[in-house]
Amino acid sequence: MGKYAFGVDIGGTSVKLGLFNKAGNLLDKWEIPTRIENDGEAILPDTAESILNKIREQGINKEDIVGIGIGVPGPVDSKGTVYEAVNLGWSVLNIPKVFGGYLDLPVMAANDANMAAFGEMYQGGARGCTDLAAVTLGTGVGGGIIVNGHILTGACGAGGEIGHIHIEDEETQECGCKNKGCLEQYASATGIVRLAERRLKKNSDESMLRGKSISAKAVFDAVKEKDQVAIEIAGEFGEYLGKGLAAVAGVVNPEVFVIGGGVSNAGSILFDFIVPPFQKYAFENCRGAKFVLATLGNDAGIYGAAGLILNERSND
Amino acid sequence: MGKYAFGVDIGGTSVKLGLFNKAGNLLDKWEIPTRIENDGEAILPDTAESILNKIREQGINKEDIVGIGIGVPGPVDSKGTVYEAVNLGWSVLNIPKVFGGYLDLPVMAANDANMAAFGEMYQGGARGCTDLAAVTLGTGVGGGIIVNGHILTGACGAGGEIGHIHIEDEETQECGCKNKGCLEQYASATGIVRLAERRLKKNSDESMLRGKSISAKAVFDAVKEKDQVAIEIAGEFGEYLGKGLAAVAGVVNPEVFVIGGGVSNAGSILFDFIVPPFQKYAFENCRGAKFVLATLGNDAGIYGAAGLILNERSND
Repeated sequence: MGKYAFGVDIGGTSVKLGLFNKAGNLLDKWEIPTRIENDGEAILPDTAESILNKIREQGINKEDIVGIGIGVPGPVDSKGTVYEAVNLGWSVLNIPKVFGGYLDLPVMAANDANMAAFGEMYQGGARGCTDLAAVTLGTGVGGGIIVNGHILTGACGAGGEIGHIHIEDEETQECGCKNKGCLEQYASATGIVRLAERRLKKNSDESMLRGKSISAKAVFDAVKEKDQVAIEIAGEFGEYLGKGLAAVAGVVNPEVFVIGGGVSNAGSILFDFIVPPFQKYAFENCRGAKFVLATLGNDAGIYGAAGLILNERSND
Repeated sequence: MGKYAFGVDIGGTSVKLGLFNKAGNLLDKWEIPTRIENDGEAILPDTAESILNKIREQGINKEDIVGIGIGVPGPVDSKGTVYEAVNLGWSVLNIPKVFGGYLDLPVMAANDANMAAFGEMYQGGARGCTDLAAVTLGTGVGGGIIVNGHILTGACGAGGEIGHIHIEDEETQECGCKNKGCLEQYASATGIVRLAERRLKKNSDESMLRGKSISAKAVFDAVKEKDQVAIEIAGEFGEYLGKGLAAVAGVVNPEVFVIGGGVSNAGSILFDFIVPPFQKYAFENCRGAKFVLATLGNDAGIYGAAGLILNERSND
């Protein structure tokens, strides 16, 4: 078996790349811009060239490279075919085939949220677990499910899309997906801001959040200062998220929930708000799921991508 | 590879057994009573004896037997350890180890609902699919998830326990699991009766359901006669179930939902009530899931159990 692998995480503004040894340690990481013009036709060639440059720069023998894992922002099926990555301008595209053609190396592709979940299992907050649900609380709510050590891809690459679980019948505003009452509308960074604005408008209770620009960070900072209004907002956030994750637990019964994304920078205080509703709503046999923070931050995707190809090819 | 396999489905009142050829055709099936006295200590020896008798009776060479699959009513982990099968009186027990000791043949065990899901994939309504969610609408709501052709067991054997997904905040009655507002309270046979009784009490609208003993069958029979009250009840049932299955789709993105259990005897008219709410609540990429009826009835468990061992050992 080879000595190195590359992990790639393609985003809408930049492509993150990492060189890993076969133990999964990150040796080097860098970024290139994502050129989305002309339906993103330059993205994969740019990425291939960047990897070739790194191979030359580091004086690596190509035979020592196990392969390349690539995370993509869109639904990717189990054969590595991506179906419409809107942010990149791509339509249907088989990544291992196209990218393998540039470099003549084994390539595996998966959805970026699923790659991040795999990364957290491989070298992050869920190391040692094989059944987990990773939840990314950022601008939206993303998710990735790992079952028995494998990414749950789903029939059309939408496995783990938990941000759009319907959670509130009374919602009047539309989610980005056009439905109303999706988990993402309450548990994402923007969802928390929405909850905060609604709560502050409800009455004139004193709060350090008033007169400030509201953000998820501001809410949880205020929670840490024991601001009662902020605690109510966090409680509402936790009620929605705990209820949503209880549904996830009833379906896949994970050992661990890994909570990441910008909102998770608030730290383990989040769990004070998520775990009690989770345990209230979860089916008894699923109630023991642990909650941990993601530890790899924005590098989870490249760790997962490298880990996926290293795991797969080590079975060869 | 051998020529035969046995499929076993252990229930609270009887143990169903089937002899299959290696193509998965059922050659013979029979039942023995489940002796639950003394913490169910006789159940596995009785089952082993029954299989040995069948082997003798049919003049089968033991070397021609691939193995035995066993479905158990309780959480079973990926190594075949069952944790408390309350209806059988069992506590923790590793089935392959214990049962293999009686017969000296390969044994695999799984939860009975998961086995039934596997059976519907193997020889039933979802033949040819590899990603599916089987939903059993009986006294309760059971479920089994198949991902990439494998049973989703979960961290503690509770994968697919979708009957206890929280779906209604306003519920005042307790579910059997002690929570309030579980899917099972609206989508099971007993749940449909509850919905019907509530609806009939609401006002005095004429309905052929009045003055009769209410059952799920009576409700759907009345639906077929275009009884407006029954159609409302079925609509409520479908709204709850469609919403619950949309959550399942957001987590595991199945290709197919297989609907079985007593309620499914109503036939494909069920889909008129389930599918529109499902599509309304499901995330776009998961909305294409097909709905089919289970076709194996009470035999799904033995088919799945035999199929599991045949599939596993054919990779040897």
